[in-house]
Amino acid sequence: MMKIALIGGTGNIGKGLALRWAKNHDILIGSRSGAKAEEAALRYKEILSGQVNIKGCSNTEAVKEGEVVVLSIPYRHIKSTIEPIRDFFTCQIVISPASPMEKRNGYFIYTPPAEGSLALEVKRVLPGTVRLFSAFQNIAAETLADTNRVMEGDVIVCGDDPEAKRVVMGLAAEIKNLRPLDGGPLEVSSMVEALTPLMLTVGLKNKIHSPQMKIV
Amino acid sequence: MMKIALIGGTGNIGKGLALRWAKNHDILIGSRSGAKAEEAALRYKEILSGQVNIKGCSNTEAVKEGEVVVLSIPYRHIKSTIEPIRDFFTCQIVISPASPMEKRNGYFIYTPPAEGSLALEVKRVLPGTVRLFSAFQNIAAETLADTNRVMEGDVIVCGDDPEAKRVVMGLAAEIKNLRPLDGGPLEVSSMVEALTPLMLTVGLKNKIHSPQMKIV
Repeated sequence: MMKIALIGGTGNIGKGLALRWAKNHDILIGSRSGAKAEEAALRYKEILSGQVNIKGCSNTEAVKEGEVVVLSIPYRHIKSTIEPIRDFFTCQIVISPASPMEKRNGYFIYTPPAEGSLALEVKRVLPGTVRLFSAFQNIAAETLADTNRVMEGDVIVCGDDPEAKRVVMGLAAEIKNLRPLDGGPLEVSSMVEALTPLMLTVGLKNKIHSPQMKIV
Repeated sequence: MMKIALIGGTGNIGKGLALRWAKNHDILIGSRSGAKAEEAALRYKEILSGQVNIKGCSNTEAVKEGEVVVLSIPYRHIKSTIEPIRDFFTCQIVISPASPMEKRNGYFIYTPPAEGSLALEVKRVLPGTVRLFSAFQNIAAETLADTNRVMEGDVIVCGDDPEAKRVVMGLAAEIKNLRPLDGGPLEVSSMVEALTPLMLTVGLKNKIHSPQMKIV
């Protein structure tokens, strides 16, 4: 049992992780608006018929209390969300599931920041004491948020701390039918972040709804 | 029936494509050394018990004769191989299956050239009249080269000419159990090229032999 903070936990990826992890963990839904977070927490509890511990709060509180912090926010809001609260990050396990990308005319393209990837940009912003991972980029958020649907795919986890990596891979394995795979160090996060626009383009062009990825 | 030129056709990816396509097409195995190419062509014919048309020749001849040209050469040799023979490229369909990458300590990393991807680098070198595609990056070359093994995975094809893209996707579909998927324009080739080091790292770290990728 861990305390898992979902920053931006009112979106699809936050909702999905909350619903999938709440049976085993205490969930903190963080939002810029505490009221919006509380409302989301109530909705998630209702979906799970109440036998779970899900709390809504400010992003700041979520980071302060969480042992694991997931940055489940769209790319464009990440820096502006974590910069003002960076001092509350100490030694948490931080998971970055987002991907910097743009929609162009009929396809998506990976548009990493100067650091080379979102994960490396986050690394520059947060204290060096956090244990940072990228994961869940190739998971269809819509499918994750619908507990009637079983996930089917692999979660590739990139990061540097071996002990914390086992925790992150364990969290992925708790979600039915997802298989965690070690994707190497944080340095290669661009390769997993690029999976999001790739999967979206492939889904769009080939009419595959909520595409998921599997290594066979 | 088409004439397919496999530049660097003596390596694993060239061998695999030759063996898998020879039943339906005329195959030209190209190499810097014509003798080496002829020797490989003989070996491939033997594996297929002879009922096929596979010819060994120089890379130049292969490009001149081929309707489809596959650049089945390791990344580091591609520019030096195609620059001297660029004038023989006219309106062929050119397929780039390689990926610029480096092996580091226990993992692989995608190292694209200044153009952003190998495909875009090749585009700059070759005449604008060729119809250029990236494809087959996530196919395990070893498995492809062993005709006793059935492939299992998806081939993501990136490129701009819709008619030629149907040809390339058709070629992928001729290989048993491979499914061609439209991956969007040539511009996003970096996202499929990055799959090679990603799959190699995931294979290495998680003990998955000859990993292949599927969208589900």
